[in-house]
Amino acid sequence: MNTHGAEPVFGAAGGLVDRRWFLRATLTGGTLLMSATAGAGAREPWMSLPGQGMGEIGDPSPRETELKRIGVASRPGTTGAGVSRTPLQHLDGIITPSRLHFERHHSGIPDIDPDRHSLSIFGLVERPLSFSTGALERYPKVSGIRFLECSGNSGALVAPEPADITAGEIHGLVSCSEWGGVPLSILLEEAGVKPEGKWIVADGGDAAMMSRSVPLSKAMRDAIVALYQNGEPLRPANGYPMRLFLPGWEGNMSVKWLRTIKVTRDPAMTRDETSKYSDLRDDGIAELFTYPMQVKSVITSPSPGLDLGAKGLYQVSGLAWSGNGSITRVEVSADGGRTWTEAALDEHVLPMCLTRFRTAWRWDGGPAVLMSRATDSAGNVQPSRDAAMQSRAANSFYHYNGIQAWRVSDRGELHNVYA
Amino acid sequence: MNTHGAEPVFGAAGGLVDRRWFLRATLTGGTLLMSATAGAGAREPWMSLPGQGMGEIGDPSPRETELKRIGVASRPGTTGAGVSRTPLQHLDGIITPSRLHFERHHSGIPDIDPDRHSLSIFGLVERPLSFSTGALERYPKVSGIRFLECSGNSGALVAPEPADITAGEIHGLVSCSEWGGVPLSILLEEAGVKPEGKWIVADGGDAAMMSRSVPLSKAMRDAIVALYQNGEPLRPANGYPMRLFLPGWEGNMSVKWLRTIKVTRDPAMTRDETSKYSDLRDDGIAELFTYPMQVKSVITSPSPGLDLGAKGLYQVSGLAWSGNGSITRVEVSADGGRTWTEAALDEHVLPMCLTRFRTAWRWDGGPAVLMSRATDSAGNVQPSRDAAMQSRAANSFYHYNGIQAWRVSDRGELHNVYA
Repeated sequence: MNTHGAEPVFGAAGGLVDRRWFLRATLTGGTLLMSATAGAGAREPWMSLPGQGMGEIGDPSPRETELKRIGVASRPGTTGAGVSRTPLQHLDGIITPSRLHFERHHSGIPDIDPDRHSLSIFGLVERPLSFSTGALERYPKVSGIRFLECSGNSGALVAPEPADITAGEIHGLVSCSEWGGVPLSILLEEAGVKPEGKWIVADGGDAAMMSRSVPLSKAMRDAIVALYQNGEPLRPANGYPMRLFLPGWEGNMSVKWLRTIKVTRDPAMTRDETSKYSDLRDDGIAELFTYPMQVKSVITSPSPGLDLGAKGLYQVSGLAWSGNGSITRVEVSADGGRTWTEAALDEHVLPMCLTRFRTAWRWDGGPAVLMSRATDSAGNVQPSRDAAMQSRAANSFYHYNGIQAWRVSDRGELHNVYA
Repeated sequence: MNTHGAEPVFGAAGGLVDRRWFLRATLTGGTLLMSATAGAGAREPWMSLPGQGMGEIGDPSPRETELKRIGVASRPGTTGAGVSRTPLQHLDGIITPSRLHFERHHSGIPDIDPDRHSLSIFGLVERPLSFSTGALERYPKVSGIRFLECSGNSGALVAPEPADITAGEIHGLVSCSEWGGVPLSILLEEAGVKPEGKWIVADGGDAAMMSRSVPLSKAMRDAIVALYQNGEPLRPANGYPMRLFLPGWEGNMSVKWLRTIKVTRDPAMTRDETSKYSDLRDDGIAELFTYPMQVKSVITSPSPGLDLGAKGLYQVSGLAWSGNGSITRVEVSADGGRTWTEAALDEHVLPMCLTRFRTAWRWDGGPAVLMSRATDSAGNVQPSRDAAMQSRAANSFYHYNGIQAWRVSDRGELHNVYA
């Protein structure tokens, strides 16, 4: 290792490097070569013979064995009621590959024939209408890059003791894709919503008939009937051939395999908006309809499972997001929240989208506690764990957005801690 | 079909709908339901039993049989020298799924062991350095969504007669991904470029040892050593474990399987920047080093293979891009370029990135010629085919960016035409 970089400007205690210096931080990870032409040396075997030819599908490298969903689990006695999570700690950037998008199904993935599927809009409308998949293809569409987060994401952190699990196992019920489809407002306008219609009730075409109520104002503002994800038709696990998509709101409301939309005067108070996906407080009151996902962040690298090597400079990188707008600021601490420095944000800082933050950190080889704290464009600041736990009933785990802390041991191992 | 939509405002002759009216264009593709609760009717078989459970990988629907690369072809006598193309006409939005990213290899895909691979920087530098894959993971990174285009893309259109092939077969050597990695400027600064160093020569670790010269100014401005594509490690066909990435410049220069960077005083005049990837003019002069890809667009839907059905309103949608900046305007014509109307652009209009445009068109059931014309932030306007062909030598096909015309027959079939 050579050590010819200029001395960094430190932005906080514990070795964090100021973000203005970040891109100039020569982390001195390069090995000095013995001669000025050393790089032109020995050929590896894969340079001696032609490699594999072109093909119809480009697969990931089989050497990348961690590129799979994690925490795959079904409720006992069922095959289709459960979750799988995105391995956040093995990804970078903001897009989630579609094959690694998290899953939350209530009765498995229906094998829908798109030619036999349609979306019906009825209830308090002038003209009840049915739209085949083919008919929707003729409609005007929009696309945008948005996160989707299960409201149960990060719920492991309400446990009394911190579970020794990874970033993806705790926070991997959030993913981010380009979603494309027909603005729902166009279809509702075509059906003609009656003045007394104030809600829609969306039902899925799965065996669970997932059913959620959505205020008409949201349906008209930015909801879409999504047909495309990351450029291609939706995958079955994400609602093929069509799903509702509600930017920034809890994932469960973006009803997959969308089959019917009924316009109503009041919310339907379905199973999945009463017994589930509501927040029980410690005074016994259940808060219903807390729709936008609140500002949150997590450091994905380093994080548990990605142990540090030799002491010295490291990139600290993670994700921040908010259902209330865009991310304006992410701060990072290496001393458990005593001091903070502002991280750099990657180029695309988009509303209701994952935002990648990065800073540099000089690890001195001793214990440390890494944290990140996000602020959104509505002025919301991610709360401490104590604040996020306040007034929650025991085991009430939806909509948890407290600050995540990773403890770094003097051997460079990382663990989930409450700090 | 019902027909209760308000009458559209036409933006040009031939049935094109003005973009200000676009999102209000009720395309009346919905079928009127017989009763206000008809949508709650019969259950399909996939609603009667639990579906498939959660899994480690989420595959596309097997019903989507067109989701594969097209025009897969190798040079006769070789297995690894050729291309495969992105099926643009079956995609929407701006992201290209990584499995469908186009390929252009010169001697196949090397099976590189990342633990035995490194990047060496030498030549006119103070400190020749070598970077292992692991060392680069500790460096500061950036990410951004960018197109990548082979400079031979769209070259089929220089043929004297228009080939009867699809949008993807003609233009599918362009794809768009989120690319993430280490700014090359950081590594070059660490190596210490000597004042006389004005170029870099990048070599790939494939059997062809792909080699290209890049001006130092570009290398320092926005080049990255890419490690990530669409959130996950690069796939082997795109340079695993690392590639050079030069935003907006011809794809061949973004050397895959990057192995060495030599800093030089002059360009190396390698095979792939002299015999290939240069533009022969009809006066016998060859233009070298025409790096940025010029402003271009193509209508992907409707397009050949996606025939129209009944007459009436259709979404017209396509892609525009420029290596000189962002897209500021896309115009669409339905009468072969006689009149034009401005298309709507999707939300994310990013520099050196695919931009999705859309407009609505009322097809009257007769013949028509659809065209799109893009303008970029540098003021460049996509030229007509005649202008794009001017002063080209016969069979000189690189860097072609003329306007694409699709002829619509009175049976609703689309074909490539010169118009």
